[in-house]
Amino acid sequence: MTNKQTAIADIAVLGMAVMGKNLALNMADHGFRTAIYNRTASKAHEAAAENPEQNLIVCETLEELIASLKTPRRLFLMVKSGPPVDTLIADLLPLLEPGDLIMDGGNSFFKDSQRRSEEVAAAGFRFLGVGVSGGESGARFGPAIMPGGDKTAYELAAPVLEAIAAKAPDGAACCAWMGEGGAGHYVKMVHNGIEYADMELIAELYYILHTGGLDNEAIAAIFEEWNQGELSSYLSEITVRILREEDPADPSIDLDSSLKEDPIALELRSSGAPTGSKYLLDKVLDISRQKGTGKWTNEEGLELGVDLSILTAGLNARYMSMDKGLRVRAEAELPQGALTEASSLPDKASLAQAFLAARLLAYAQGFSLYRAAAKAYHWNLDYRTIAATFRGGCIIRSALLSPIMEAYAADSDLPNLLLAPAFRATLEAGIPALRSLLASTIATGLPVPAYAAALSYYDQLRAARSSANMISAQRDYFGAHTFQRTDREGIYHHEWPQTDEE
Amino acid sequence: MTNKQTAIADIAVLGMAVMGKNLALNMADHGFRTAIYNRTASKAHEAAAENPEQNLIVCETLEELIASLKTPRRLFLMVKSGPPVDTLIADLLPLLEPGDLIMDGGNSFFKDSQRRSEEVAAAGFRFLGVGVSGGESGARFGPAIMPGGDKTAYELAAPVLEAIAAKAPDGAACCAWMGEGGAGHYVKMVHNGIEYADMELIAELYYILHTGGLDNEAIAAIFEEWNQGELSSYLSEITVRILREEDPADPSIDLDSSLKEDPIALELRSSGAPTGSKYLLDKVLDISRQKGTGKWTNEEGLELGVDLSILTAGLNARYMSMDKGLRVRAEAELPQGALTEASSLPDKASLAQAFLAARLLAYAQGFSLYRAAAKAYHWNLDYRTIAATFRGGCIIRSALLSPIMEAYAADSDLPNLLLAPAFRATLEAGIPALRSLLASTIATGLPVPAYAAALSYYDQLRAARSSANMISAQRDYFGAHTFQRTDREGIYHHEWPQTDEE
Repeated sequence: MTNKQTAIADIAVLGMAVMGKNLALNMADHGFRTAIYNRTASKAHEAAAENPEQNLIVCETLEELIASLKTPRRLFLMVKSGPPVDTLIADLLPLLEPGDLIMDGGNSFFKDSQRRSEEVAAAGFRFLGVGVSGGESGARFGPAIMPGGDKTAYELAAPVLEAIAAKAPDGAACCAWMGEGGAGHYVKMVHNGIEYADMELIAELYYILHTGGLDNEAIAAIFEEWNQGELSSYLSEITVRILREEDPADPSIDLDSSLKEDPIALELRSSGAPTGSKYLLDKVLDISRQKGTGKWTNEEGLELGVDLSILTAGLNARYMSMDKGLRVRAEAELPQGALTEASSLPDKASLAQAFLAARLLAYAQGFSLYRAAAKAYHWNLDYRTIAATFRGGCIIRSALLSPIMEAYAADSDLPNLLLAPAFRATLEAGIPALRSLLASTIATGLPVPAYAAALSYYDQLRAARSSANMISAQRDYFGAHTFQRTDREGIYHHEWPQTDEE
Repeated sequence: MTNKQTAIADIAVLGMAVMGKNLALNMADHGFRTAIYNRTASKAHEAAAENPEQNLIVCETLEELIASLKTPRRLFLMVKSGPPVDTLIADLLPLLEPGDLIMDGGNSFFKDSQRRSEEVAAAGFRFLGVGVSGGESGARFGPAIMPGGDKTAYELAAPVLEAIAAKAPDGAACCAWMGEGGAGHYVKMVHNGIEYADMELIAELYYILHTGGLDNEAIAAIFEEWNQGELSSYLSEITVRILREEDPADPSIDLDSSLKEDPIALELRSSGAPTGSKYLLDKVLDISRQKGTGKWTNEEGLELGVDLSILTAGLNARYMSMDKGLRVRAEAELPQGALTEASSLPDKASLAQAFLAARLLAYAQGFSLYRAAAKAYHWNLDYRTIAATFRGGCIIRSALLSPIMEAYAADSDLPNLLLAPAFRATLEAGIPALRSLLASTIATGLPVPAYAAALSYYDQLRAARSSANMISAQRDYFGAHTFQRTDREGIYHHEWPQTDEE
């Protein structure tokens, strides 16, 4: 053990994989004496040895770790989500004293956090499920942090978490208590669902411009210009850098991942890709994977009855991308059915308006899910605080979060984000622009599923009278499922005339 | 007990709610001596008393029921899905002899059927999870039947099930062994997912025509005409009858359901509905509910990585319909953003082509899920047999199933239904028609989410090179998630230039 004295540590980080190590260094940077633990102790010793100035306290056993901490103890778990979290909690519980706090900063499913919150409370201690966004560099220099659980537990954690969190443009820490139980991991989960949509909307726009004949530099210049104003976002910013990056002479193979490769024949890979390009992006295979949180978000939409079609389009585009062999065959064999040969794209200003409106629509879906979850799980989610927390450190940080905060500041119980007066102008300009964008892509055959879903959602939302009377009548016809009426109270069943065969 | 002699019954039906009673009558009609059982025995006595000519054997206990059956015994359970099925199976197991067969005909989740299949086999007996489609009248006069489980078990069940099943236009029984374990209930579940899409495509078309100024009779005449040919379907047929049905002078309240009513204010209900119409459909509230199987299907799409966007649109439209208050407010407050005032709809022939293509696209998604499930769950699903079984008795029976059967007869391992030469002409005509339909609805602001999803799916499928290279590059940028290349084998990670803040 290195530098060990009794009960001098302010916080402990358990798990020295890349996220845990960087969070520990971040805590130490901010003046917290940080004890570290890893099941294989050598990794903890390495982390301390590589970073001598952080003065990390290496503990080889959980008993040592507990002894090293001031009370009430703050333990931050950063281990693989799932059973390893439960095992570590079970090992810790016998060692704790009343008032001690366990935080799980991993990528846990919110229902697990909900359950652990109850289990740890039943054992007499405190628990927070903490969503952490920002990847390796976020963990090191400032992630967005979304803790959920007992509010007094948050007060114990806050001095550390708010110190290490990213800071929003106005200087506020991107960390706040989200609600009880699994609320923190829930907020983080939906963040990732929105991230899928945000990424897909950029990718489709890139695709339109690329197919329209613009080269990578011209497309980068457009995103760069947009990035100065209300469309500014981290994802747009990295898109500019990605578009400009040249293919290195000696691409570096990721040796750790060599086993994950799909057996896709080389002649399929290059199908449709530009030849002779100097840009790396043109050499990147059009297959994208996912790691589950986007899927969880969509499952929640199904469960709680919330239309997340734009987020779903982001996930489905990844699923469709996996079927490269089928797509190559389908392009060769299936008719295109285009109505016009040439693509007459809307101008740049119109595209910007459509892009902003579609992003807003995706956020409206994500925040509708928060609203449904608050009701279903009895959380007092504060939508303004959620938007505020996203402003720094996380992948979807963007200028759009400020008007979203304003919208919820003006009406904390807004039934849908689109109804906020703050967005009236965005929609006035953006919806016609979205229609123009779709009119041209639909005529020529360019796939833009996320933009199409965005407009469908908008037009459905603003249909006071929908086509669901037909669905309801059909269900009553074949299944006696009953219906309501426009002109009377009550639930009705009608004896419909039967078909000839019945 | 009525008419009881020892071991004379060919089959037993357990559960005398509406579906169980009608299946028992159907079995008796076909010459099978049928024993019936209900936990509350009076319901079984009533069923027998109301239908004396069927000569049903009422058993008040499970022991009596077992004694009444010829061996090997065939027991058909038609009780509420979930725990009641497990309870009944547990009560039956001690009474059975080797070779006896338990069938569960309820609306069970396929994973429950998979588990029960294993549990009953472990106890030394046989099990089938049986999907039954067609509602009350189907149960009575011929449902579509989708049994899954041990194949020898199916051979014991077949004489009864194939006799009582609906008959396809060519006379074949709409009943066939679907595969091992939960395959039967899986096939039925996806049937319902496709049903949601089929219904939504009709509802959106009705909405377009209705908004375009056609009256109900004119719309009915269009569907009636289409119903003579390749667009013929049960759902279109009932749509014609629904459209023509006049509002009765004295609508009948469903007293059983009075507690299910949502508190929707009367002034909201009528918003946007035609006034002074003589038709019942115009008085049906535009809120439609769902009972879970469509949701399960969508969850399976997420789980197995299959884009089911058209089916999802059917489910989401029901979710959106529930938010009547929000929709009324949104229509009043949000800009429409229409590009043209008047709707210039494609002609009737073009609409028919778009309708057929969109239905085919929905089936392509559903059958892609079957294909993924066959791989994931190790089932030998026969797609031609599935389509054949849908031809009678079930809600989605239609003329479209014949060319689907042909497609799989020609290539049982077709990677996607759209690639079948049998559908070349449908797509040649249908895709441009779909583009025209969407061009006009998008310009004017009519919500047609299922048609929009259908075209997005098609255009994504036939994009040999998609926009997923951008997604993949972004993921590698912010999360080091690696990517593949178009021009080399291997998995790569690139050190992208960092943003200014990083």
